[in-house]
Amino acid sequence: MNFELTILGSGSAVPTANRNPTAHFLNFGEKFFLIDCGEGTQIQLKRYKLRFTRINHIFISHLHGDHYFGLIGLISTLNLLGRKNPLYIYGPPQLKELLDFQMKLADHYIGYKIEFTPLSYDQSKVIVDDRRYTVETIILKHRVHCCGFIFREKSKQRNIIREKIQQYQIPLKEVANIKAGADFLSTDGKFISNKELTIEPPKPKSYAFCSDTIYKESIIEQIKNVDLLYHEATFLSNLSELAKQTYHTTAAQAANIAKMANVKQLVIGHFSSRYASFDEFLQEACPVFENTQIAADGKRIPF
Amino acid sequence: MNFELTILGSGSAVPTANRNPTAHFLNFGEKFFLIDCGEGTQIQLKRYKLRFTRINHIFISHLHGDHYFGLIGLISTLNLLGRKNPLYIYGPPQLKELLDFQMKLADHYIGYKIEFTPLSYDQSKVIVDDRRYTVETIILKHRVHCCGFIFREKSKQRNIIREKIQQYQIPLKEVANIKAGADFLSTDGKFISNKELTIEPPKPKSYAFCSDTIYKESIIEQIKNVDLLYHEATFLSNLSELAKQTYHTTAAQAANIAKMANVKQLVIGHFSSRYASFDEFLQEACPVFENTQIAADGKRIPF
Repeated sequence: MNFELTILGSGSAVPTANRNPTAHFLNFGEKFFLIDCGEGTQIQLKRYKLRFTRINHIFISHLHGDHYFGLIGLISTLNLLGRKNPLYIYGPPQLKELLDFQMKLADHYIGYKIEFTPLSYDQSKVIVDDRRYTVETIILKHRVHCCGFIFREKSKQRNIIREKIQQYQIPLKEVANIKAGADFLSTDGKFISNKELTIEPPKPKSYAFCSDTIYKESIIEQIKNVDLLYHEATFLSNLSELAKQTYHTTAAQAANIAKMANVKQLVIGHFSSRYASFDEFLQEACPVFENTQIAADGKRIPF
Repeated sequence: MNFELTILGSGSAVPTANRNPTAHFLNFGEKFFLIDCGEGTQIQLKRYKLRFTRINHIFISHLHGDHYFGLIGLISTLNLLGRKNPLYIYGPPQLKELLDFQMKLADHYIGYKIEFTPLSYDQSKVIVDDRRYTVETIILKHRVHCCGFIFREKSKQRNIIREKIQQYQIPLKEVANIKAGADFLSTDGKFISNKELTIEPPKPKSYAFCSDTIYKESIIEQIKNVDLLYHEATFLSNLSELAKQTYHTTAAQAANIAKMANVKQLVIGHFSSRYASFDEFLQEACPVFENTQIAADGKRIPF
């Protein structure tokens, strides 16, 4: 199974010729999610040959235009392409009103159902609870209500070793218990420990998305040990005052969050349009957290 | 003075990796206009290094998303860049409501004034009457109310030949009359014809934008002799029935309009996303109207 993030937009409020506004396409074990949907997202999906008709869930962090202005265009295009499956959208309550207004202006009905879940901002909540994974909100602190999202695979059962089934004549009805961790008592009274019969499943994967936010240490506990953390880094440290005023983060601060949360990989993005070169972002982040990379439009990050 | 059209988006409702939805940047004698504003227009403006802060007038033909979904993003970015000058927007009345709603959602006021002029669709009207040019609507026929636009330079006065002023001792107060076409009677009673004193000014330029529309011959009279005509050509002739059903035009029909209107140049665009190659559009249009070219994102067409 693949776990891969594709950056569709790595810029911030003012897009540049090379950096679209925020959007992430997440392949999470062959489930496909879109996180934020800045203007031009549907064109980026086409450009990077991503099958956006497979997207069933869209998560919108907050109502700044660089995070949602592309949503209505994507909704329209999915309709023109004949979508029938419902589309699940999670976002600030007012987004629903806006979408309703925009769809009223269109000259034909949307031929599929939009299931909208309004986000709340008082405390973190599990907003998707699937058989295989959950999605929970991260309460960020920005100029407007803003959520990040954590995607967590659920723990898998242990894998039973096929040869052992034959060797110990394990009946089918015992397999589920053994996968769940039980030991086995054979028909001739022999005790076989679970450890001998099974192997560890792969560790559940996790991805955390944190944009936009002021430096906020209280998120660390929640994102601890994730496989991949995306954290915004709008500015370099010499503009840390501006970062604070505008409720954004610097590259060093993002690296600090990654380090304290003991994540495996960090990717930083949402760069201010004032920057043309990004070496300094790495120079600032890597001494704090080595396994950092720079977001770029079209970049794919397996995890 | 330059007269040049830059195509920002040559695709139609479903954008492709190479063809953004409709938007035209028009340099009309150093006045800069934006015509339609599909999703991603601000990014295209950046990509093609066009100084979009010089745009003061935006014309929106109709309320299909591929013609206006980029407008709110452009408005926001102009605000972030500190715009103070008013922005004049001409579009369907409901667009104003939508913009008001979208701006209400933003967390800061727009720091410049938006002067909105609602378009009407009963008959063609002059919607801008400047000292140097006019803009008038063209009533098109589409699934929703839709206007094209003609930009016409006003006739200029004749240019007086500098040497003749000295030669015939023409007093300053006579210059305006001579420029307007008057002859001159010198102090010694000699008659000098205007033709000897002046030269013809350059012919006034004109550009007509016609998208989206069913084949409509009744526009021909209005667009007669324009220097450059953009006409949509969503389909090839083998899909002329589909063109009719969806209120669009084929390449051959667009060329026919250009021929009957005796325009100087034709550019066709708004191509359906089903096409990957565009030779056939030319093969179809050129035998009818030779001076036809294919729109492509970033293409500049002087006229």
